[in-house]
Amino acid sequence: MDLAQFSYWIGMAGITAFSVTAVLALATKGIDLFSAAVLGIITAVGGGTLRDLILDVPIFWLIDVTYIWVALIASLISFWAEPLLTRKEIHSLLLYVDGFGAAMFSILTINKVWALGYGLPLVPILLGIVTAIGGGLLRDVLAGRPTLLMTHELYATPVLLGCSLYVAMIYWIPEYRLISAITCGALIFGTRAAAIHWHLTVPPWLVTKTRSNR
Amino acid sequence: MDLAQFSYWIGMAGITAFSVTAVLALATKGIDLFSAAVLGIITAVGGGTLRDLILDVPIFWLIDVTYIWVALIASLISFWAEPLLTRKEIHSLLLYVDGFGAAMFSILTINKVWALGYGLPLVPILLGIVTAIGGGLLRDVLAGRPTLLMTHELYATPVLLGCSLYVAMIYWIPEYRLISAITCGALIFGTRAAAIHWHLTVPPWLVTKTRSNR
Amino acid sequence: MDLAQFSYWIGMAGITAFSVTAVLALATKGIDLFSAAVLGIITAVGGGTLRDLILDVPIFWLIDVTYIWVALIASLISFWAEPLLTRKEIHSLLLYVDGFGAAMFSILTINKVWALGYGLPLVPILLGIVTAIGGGLLRDVLAGRPTLLMTHELYATPVLLGCSLYVAMIYWIPEYRLISAITCGALIFGTRAAAIHWHLTVPPWLVTKTRSNR
Repeated sequence: MDLAQFSYWIGMAGITAFSVTAVLALATKGIDLFSAAVLGIITAVGGGTLRDLILDVPIFWLIDVTYIWVALIASLISFWAEPLLTRKEIHSLLLYVDGFGAAMFSILTINKVWALGYGLPLVPILLGIVTAIGGGLLRDVLAGRPTLLMTHELYATPVLLGCSLYVAMIYWIPEYRLISAITCGALIFGTRAAAIHWHLTVPPWLVTKTRSNR
Repeated sequence: MDLAQFSYWIGMAGITAFSVTAVLALATKGIDLFSAAVLGIITAVGGGTLRDLILDVPIFWLIDVTYIWVALIASLISFWAEPLLTRKEIHSLLLYVDGFGAAMFSILTINKVWALGYGLPLVPILLGIVTAIGGGLLRDVLAGRPTLLMTHELYATPVLLGCSLYVAMIYWIPEYRLISAITCGALIFGTRAAAIHWHLTVPPWLVTKTRSNR
Repeated sequence: MDLAQFSYWIGMAGITAFSVTAVLALATKGIDLFSAAVLGIITAVGGGTLRDLILDVPIFWLIDVTYIWVALIASLISFWAEPLLTRKEIHSLLLYVDGFGAAMFSILTINKVWALGYGLPLVPILLGIVTAIGGGLLRDVLAGRPTLLMTHELYATPVLLGCSLYVAMIYWIPEYRLISAITCGALIFGTRAAAIHWHLTVPPWLVTKTRSNR
C-alpha cells in the first residue's frame, strides 16, 4: 500500500468517525432517521466541502462518491446501534477516533493547499482548521446547539498548533515531508486525546469573560 | 408550450411559494420589511444556489435574474398582505403550493445533475434534497428558529422517496423519462399533501429519543 | 495615491473595523482567544467570500492574503485590549468605523459586479448587501446570537438605499462615476451614523408583529 492509498483509507476512517459521533451527539435531542442521515453526511463532508468551494477545485465527494456512501451507511448504523454506541467505554473510544479524523483531515488539507501554492503560510493553516471543524460547526448550527467556538472545548486549538508546526516544517525541512506529517498529525491527536482524557478546556486567562470578572 | 418552458413556469411558481411561506412563517416573530425581502429571497433561491455552488455551474439566478425579481415581489406582497394570507384557508393552500415547489425543484435538480453525470445515483438524490430543503434551512438558521431537521415534520422524507424512485426509473426505464418525472413529482407532492392534511410527523420508532425512552 | 490604492486602504480599514467590532460584540459572552481569532476573521472576510463564491471569481483573500493577516492581528489585539476598547467613547467610535466599512464594501462590490455585467440592476444591489452584512450574519449564527435580520437595527436598510441609488447613478450618469461612489458611500455612512447616534430602529409600521397588534 502506497502513501496515496494510505491517505485514502485514513480519510475514510475520519469520515466514519465524524458521522458516528454526529449521530450520537444529536441522539439525546431526539433525532429522526432522515435527519440522522443528513446531519451525519453534512458533519462528515461539510468541512472538506467548504475547503473545496473556497479553493474552487471540484468537491472531493463529487469525484469519488464513496465518501458519501460511507458517511450514509455509518450514520444509519449509528442510528440503529445508538443504545450500544452510547455505552460509556465505546463512546469515549469514538471521541478519540473523531480526534484522529480531525488530525488526519487537517494534515491532508495542508498537503492539498500547499500544492496549490495559495497564501503561504496562513491560508493552508486556515483551511486546515476549516476542514477539521467546518462539518461540526454546520451540524451544531443546523441542530440548534452551541457551536464549539462558544464552548471553550480544546478541539480547534490542537489543530491550530499541529497545522502551524506542519507548515513550518514543510517550509524549513521540505526533505522530511512524511516524517513531518506523521509528527504533526500525532501532535494534534495527542493533544486532543489529552483534552478528552483529562477533560481539559481553554484556560480562563484565555477567555474574555473570566478576565473581565477579575 | 414545450417542456423547457413548462419547467420554467413551474420553477417560478415554486419560487413564489417558497418566498410567500417564508414571510408568513416569520411574520409572527415580528419581522421588518427589509428582513422579509432578504429572507424571502434566501428561502426561495438558497437551495438552488447551494446546488449550483457544489456543482460549480453558474448560479441559476445570475443567468436569469427574473428568479430574484419574482422572489422579491412575492416577499413584498406577502409582507403587506400578511393579515389576509394568514387566514386559515389561504395559509393551508400556500402550504400545499410550497410542497408543490419542493416536489418540482427536486425533480428539476435530478434532471440537471443526471445530465452532468456526477456520482450516480447518490449525488442526484442528495442534491435534490439540498435544493428542496436548503433554502428553508438557511431561513430558519438566520431567523433563530429550529430547523426542520429537528422538528420531525414529514417534509424531507417525501422528497427522499420521490427522488430515489425517480433516479431508479431514469436508470431502468430511461425511455419513459417524462412519465417518470410526473409520477415521482406527484408522489412527492401527494405524500407531502397527506402530511399537511393529516398533520403527520415521523413515526416515534424512527426517532432516537422516544426509542431510548421505551 | 491613485483610486485603486485608495480603495485598497479603505478595504483594509473596513476589514479591521469588522474584526474589532466582532470580537468586542462577543467578548461579553466569554470567548476564548482561538474563537476570537476565527470569528474575527469570518466576520471580516465572510461577506466578500460569499460574494466571490456566488460570482465564481477567485476569493479575494486567496489572491491577497494580507486581508487575513490584518483580520487576524486586529482580532488578537482586540482580544487583549478588550477592557480598553469597550470603554464607552472608544466603543462608539468603533461602531462608526464599522458603518464606514459596510459603506465602503458595498460600494466596492457594486463596482466589481457591475464590471462583470450580471443581472443589472438587481444582482449588484443584492451582492452589495450580502458583502456588507454576510460576515456579521455568519458571526451571529456561529455565536448563537440573534442575527441583525431579526433585531430591526437600521444596519442593512442604509446599505440598500445607498446601493440602489449608486446603481441608478451608474446607469443614468456613468460619466460621474467617482462622484456617485462618494455620494452613495457618504449616504450609507451618514444614515448608519444617524442610526447609531439617535438609536434609530426600523419604524413599527414596517414590522409585522406591531402591525398585527394594532
